Amino acid sequence: MGMLTSISGYPEWLPGDRFVEQYFVNLIQKKFELFGFTPVETRAIEPLSTLASKGEVDKEIFTLRRYQATSQDELGDVGLHFDLTVPFARYTMENKSQLVFPFRRYQIQKVWRGERPGLGRYREFLQADIDIVDQNSLTISYDLEVIQTINEIMYSLPIPNTKIFVNNRKLLEGAYKSFGIAKIHETLRIIDKLAKIGERQVYQMLLNNLGFSPNTASRCIELGRVVTQNPLALEVAIKSLGCKNELIDEGLSELTYIMTACNKQDKNSVYVDLSIARGLDYYTGTVCEAKFVDFPKYPTIAAGGRYDNLLSDGSYQMPGVGISLGITRMLGLVLHENILRPSRKTPTCVLIALVSDDEREKSLEIANQLRTRGIPCETFPRAVKYGKQIKYAEKLGIPYVWFPSEDSQHTDEIRDIRNRTQVIANVEKWYPPTEDLSIQVVTNHEALEKIRTKSAYR
Amino acid sequence: MGMLTSISGYPEWLPGDRFVEQYFVNLIQKKFELFGFTPVETRAIEPLSTLASKGEVDKEIFTLRRYQATSQDELGDVGLHFDLTVPFARYTMENKSQLVFPFRRYQIQKVWRGERPGLGRYREFLQADIDIVDQNSLTISYDLEVIQTINEIMYSLPIPNTKIFVNNRKLLEGAYKSFGIAKIHETLRIIDKLAKIGERQVYQMLLNNLGFSPNTASRCIELGRVVTQNPLALEVAIKSLGCKNELIDEGLSELTYIMTACNKQDKNSVYVDLSIARGLDYYTGTVCEAKFVDFPKYPTIAAGGRYDNLLSDGSYQMPGVGISLGITRMLGLVLHENILRPSRKTPTCVLIALVSDDEREKSLEIANQLRTRGIPCETFPRAVKYGKQIKYAEKLGIPYVWFPSEDSQHTDEIRDIRNRTQVIANVEKWYPPTEDLSIQVVTNHEALEKIRTKSAYR
Repeated sequence: MGMLTSISGYPEWLPGDRFVEQYFVNLIQKKFELFGFTPVETRAIEPLSTLASKGEVDKEIFTLRRYQATSQDELGDVGLHFDLTVPFARYTMENKSQLVFPFRRYQIQKVWRGERPGLGRYREFLQADIDIVDQNSLTISYDLEVIQTINEIMYSLPIPNTKIFVNNRKLLEGAYKSFGIAKIHETLRIIDKLAKIGERQVYQMLLNNLGFSPNTASRCIELGRVVTQNPLALEVAIKSLGCKNELIDEGLSELTYIMTACNKQDKNSVYVDLSIARGLDYYTGTVCEAKFVDFPKYPTIAAGGRYDNLLSDGSYQMPGVGISLGITRMLGLVLHENILRPSRKTPTCVLIALVSDDEREKSLEIANQLRTRGIPCETFPRAVKYGKQIKYAEKLGIPYVWFPSEDSQHTDEIRDIRNRTQVIANVEKWYPPTEDLSIQVVTNHEALEKIRTKSAYR
Repeated sequence: MGMLTSISGYPEWLPGDRFVEQYFVNLIQKKFELFGFTPVETRAIEPLSTLASKGEVDKEIFTLRRYQATSQDELGDVGLHFDLTVPFARYTMENKSQLVFPFRRYQIQKVWRGERPGLGRYREFLQADIDIVDQNSLTISYDLEVIQTINEIMYSLPIPNTKIFVNNRKLLEGAYKSFGIAKIHETLRIIDKLAKIGERQVYQMLLNNLGFSPNTASRCIELGRVVTQNPLALEVAIKSLGCKNELIDEGLSELTYIMTACNKQDKNSVYVDLSIARGLDYYTGTVCEAKFVDFPKYPTIAAGGRYDNLLSDGSYQMPGVGISLGITRMLGLVLHENILRPSRKTPTCVLIALVSDDEREKSLEIANQLRTRGIPCETFPRAVKYGKQIKYAEKLGIPYVWFPSEDSQHTDEIRDIRNRTQVIANVEKWYPPTEDLSIQVVTNHEALEKIRTKSAYR
């Protein structure tokens, strides 16, 4: 279906499908606001000093230059943002005197990454982020709240089966330390590849890239196998790996808090998964990922976590927690699998036919009158046969065609092109059924059910 | 007010003000759809070959590079789009086999220009575009329709007095040719500066840069002085300049058609103004600009025109017409002049107070129940004195604070912090008045009236 990528990695949608994207954005926005997040936008560019040294993504940054640069008017070293967390942190630090804390914001914007394009991986894509930051300390219940917000959205969208997998960096770091590992970030970045490249390759990378012993590498892999919704099972699994320290205890207690609260909500969609590591260096506690479980090869559609030190200027710090939702990524699958489709390819509800070139003004006037009453419409440009004009409406799925009277003896008529009925119509009174007034997004329940039935994961 | 520009030319808004921007976007979007325009988005980048050689803006293009470029994975020569017309033209040509013509689309996206930042001039800004393209030929009534769409929006937004000034490139080109001028594009680019730098400087530029005789330069300037709503006056003015050819007649007839139709709409806001030239080379007929007439120094807030040859690949061509609305530019003035303000700084309608650390779960549960019924809320993170918790709500303008019962003997209460009344509340039944449910945009009619009274233009 609708995805076009005339430059690899830069998706564009056909008319109609863009409407499905807007439907996603509106629904997500509404849910964010329900949870008390306030909208913010940041500029697309950031100084390279802000963007770089954040981990895995460094090599994916796009930098900017002026095409015809003049010496007196040169940009500094700037690049396009690769996520919305780093710009949000900068914005919050910069404006902290004018903000109120805890600061809850949402942000829905394009981001750019020089990734290798592939299944669900783009170089320009739309992200929807929520974050909460507070001064000095941040309650763990906010970690829970951001997860619940995303969970709520997943349940409201007509998308395939989604689950959220949660882990905790303190637990991982504690465990790695107890295994005698010093290169924590490097280990996390490799472990983060588990879902993508599998245990065998991760094991080899731990050996080859970081010089781990087979035993240490094995223990890292084994830790990553723990997936559970049971707090007790989690504790037992950790103990059986024989590692114990304060960091592990802290991580375990935070994870248990989140798991217990999510279990109560009875949505059966949040799991603890100790293979979740995330590639960005700034996470310090909770980390999580949401996935389409029926499409195990499809990349993560939401991810985030707790960052205690990203917003800090030495004198004091503002811990934060947030999750980023990949709208383009979700949409890519939903449109490809034909799960959602727009009811028509244009907002136009009524096409005003053109009787003759001399009657153009009459058509324009009818359009204006209908618009005054909130009915989206447009005028046909050429006085060709009505059959051709109707054809145009059919191609776009415009439900009604208005035929202006040809002379004072006749009256205006309107045709429902779906059932080919035509009736007399009064421009001051005619009104479409509500479901025809604006373009609708229709869920293809059959396609959705097929995915669910097929999936080996159910 | 709210505009922050920590990098010159890249505006950001404070929470609350971003809501005013969304209000603008939503209203504009709704009007576009009423006129039957379908939403499209294009990627932010275009090949330099698509972007360059479009006129004045060439020197303002930003190009992209990878921060850590590797030879096998290099971007071609690409830059950020500086408007939405050029990407739209590219998109339409690329997908023409899947589109239906006439193709009416709207597009609301950020664009980037390396302009010198100043009053109403940014390097990153939000544009809202409408365009209609058709195959082979395009009716002049669409030129009218795009102007009427923008006019309708201007009348619907609580913004200062706006007028639309229309001209026609055929008329200008015809006149210049009859003056013996060969460098048409160069002349247009200089004439385009009339409003910005004044007649005297434009006259000098015509002499110095293009080598015009004083007589030729004078006639160009004089032509630019014609501003009228009267078709007859326009004809007389053209005749009195002693120039006549087919191109002039064509331009005159198109202008007259638009003026006559706009006059009938009785909004007194569309004028013919022969000083309007536009800096982009691709316009071929109608050109127009919308301005805040009470702020003569403020740059154009909407502009566009007819382009007959932009979408062409030799074999055939698709003429188009469109207008671009500068949302950031409008908003810059509206917020600066304090004309619009958000009713509060957060979508949150109810803050759930925290009784004690042990009662955190109760607060979260209340929040969840209210959200289920569509009431935006958030929980306070710290069990500090209620006075401090209320203070937080006050700072953000959150109208209600919910106090969970402290024990089973008591009931929940809700406080309206504006009138300090506190009543018993049931979490399953309480509902706010509609005007409190979501954040509202409030028009400061006093500020608006003051501008109107002050203005020398009324």
